[in-house]
Amino acid sequence: MRVDVVSIFPEYLAPLELSLIGRARATGVLDVAVHDLRTWTHDVHRTVDDTPYGGGPGMVMRPEPWGEALDALAPPGAEPPPRLVVPTPVGAPFTQAMAHELAAESRLVFACGRYEGIDQRVLDHAATRMPVTEVSLGDYVLFGGEVAVLVIMEAVTRLLPGVLGNVDSLAEESHAHGLLEAPVYTKPPSWRGHEVPEILRSGDHGRIARWRRDQALLRTAARRPDMLAALAPGELDKKDVATLAGTGFQPSVDYMAE
Amino acid sequence: MRVDVVSIFPEYLAPLELSLIGRARATGVLDVAVHDLRTWTHDVHRTVDDTPYGGGPGMVMRPEPWGEALDALAPPGAEPPPRLVVPTPVGAPFTQAMAHELAAESRLVFACGRYEGIDQRVLDHAATRMPVTEVSLGDYVLFGGEVAVLVIMEAVTRLLPGVLGNVDSLAEESHAHGLLEAPVYTKPPSWRGHEVPEILRSGDHGRIARWRRDQALLRTAARRPDMLAALAPGELDKKDVATLAGTGFQPSVDYMAE
Repeated sequence: MRVDVVSIFPEYLAPLELSLIGRARATGVLDVAVHDLRTWTHDVHRTVDDTPYGGGPGMVMRPEPWGEALDALAPPGAEPPPRLVVPTPVGAPFTQAMAHELAAESRLVFACGRYEGIDQRVLDHAATRMPVTEVSLGDYVLFGGEVAVLVIMEAVTRLLPGVLGNVDSLAEESHAHGLLEAPVYTKPPSWRGHEVPEILRSGDHGRIARWRRDQALLRTAARRPDMLAALAPGELDKKDVATLAGTGFQPSVDYMAE
Repeated sequence: MRVDVVSIFPEYLAPLELSLIGRARATGVLDVAVHDLRTWTHDVHRTVDDTPYGGGPGMVMRPEPWGEALDALAPPGAEPPPRLVVPTPVGAPFTQAMAHELAAESRLVFACGRYEGIDQRVLDHAATRMPVTEVSLGDYVLFGGEVAVLVIMEAVTRLLPGVLGNVDSLAEESHAHGLLEAPVYTKPPSWRGHEVPEILRSGDHGRIARWRRDQALLRTAARRPDMLAALAPGELDKKDVATLAGTGFQPSVDYMAE
């Protein structure tokens, strides 16, 4: 996968050289280039912003440097065109499903907005020649798109082939199966008066699997009832429903069909 | 505000020196220290992880280094104790409201988990002497808590007194009033055949405000109907309801009461 990132704070993207993203780049699974938007300015002050039409606080990013950046990184007629990803609070919420979609692309271009955002015409124009995805990390306000790119690239990179050593690890994580994960424990068995639950030391794999499933169900019911409510029919069995009996969660479909 | 971050990838936190976070640190509004968890290991390999009890893929972070780190950064009896913030996919979803809560704290300690997470007993033990907040950026899976700390610290820092020059800018942003923001435009008035909407150049502040409100309503209806549905009674007036008439959005309360 080839990824280009355009930002006025290219140094913010330095973590893309670390950890498993750095390793994916070293092995050739991932090719990342970070570009300074000011490369595509032509005035002595390398201006990228101006006041908003219609008044109001803050500054808006001017369209010209962005237009030139996209001409360079996604030339008209490129086949297939890269996907332009624009982190913005007005975008669609980023989810694990979207991470999978992006991981299936061969080329991504990220446009990192700052200030009050990028002139709308940049996106309108880009949409005439490439797919454009406006994406929001969540319902909170950031300084700009850079940190969102770090998040999205972590979520995407771990889905690229060969990046995670253990594919089981991928399948068992929270949000992979619609429930929060059970608590985890490692050595020592006793620490500051807190013990590892006995069942995890029992060696009884069936009981351990059931305990983890119950913990995941109870945790999800307590913390994220919205996730439980979003499960598809058939994702809960009779034992699951029994576990959830005391939580107030009401299965709205016939989970016991199977 | 004093912030301590504990991580096995302290270099990942380098962006906390840049941009407005860096400026907040320079002006003394914010004091950040990043610590390597391995400082609190005592074996030659500086081990921080081990296999999970009960089996399964991946590694779990051992409790001892975390216990010592918290002893050092949040000594028993500290008054008031700092708030421990643990980014994890099993946490409560991070929101702008939580950013405001965290911005009101005088001391935060972030614990960045990696692998399959931190031994549960670390959090159980910490909770006996300080408030503990487990927080999730969104419903997607990351490599670890580091990038989440960058996100949370951006959202929190911009709420600290004096960090943003223009308080109006704070009030008008998406998620501050429950609607997505209207599109923004700046110079030049015409760019590559795309024009700035005439109304924004009219100088008629009343019509501009109405246009922006309508754009915000229509965008929110199209992209985030969940946000519209979450508005409190009284947040939409008759004109808003008229604007939304064609979108299929059904006001569920009497918005026209005022």
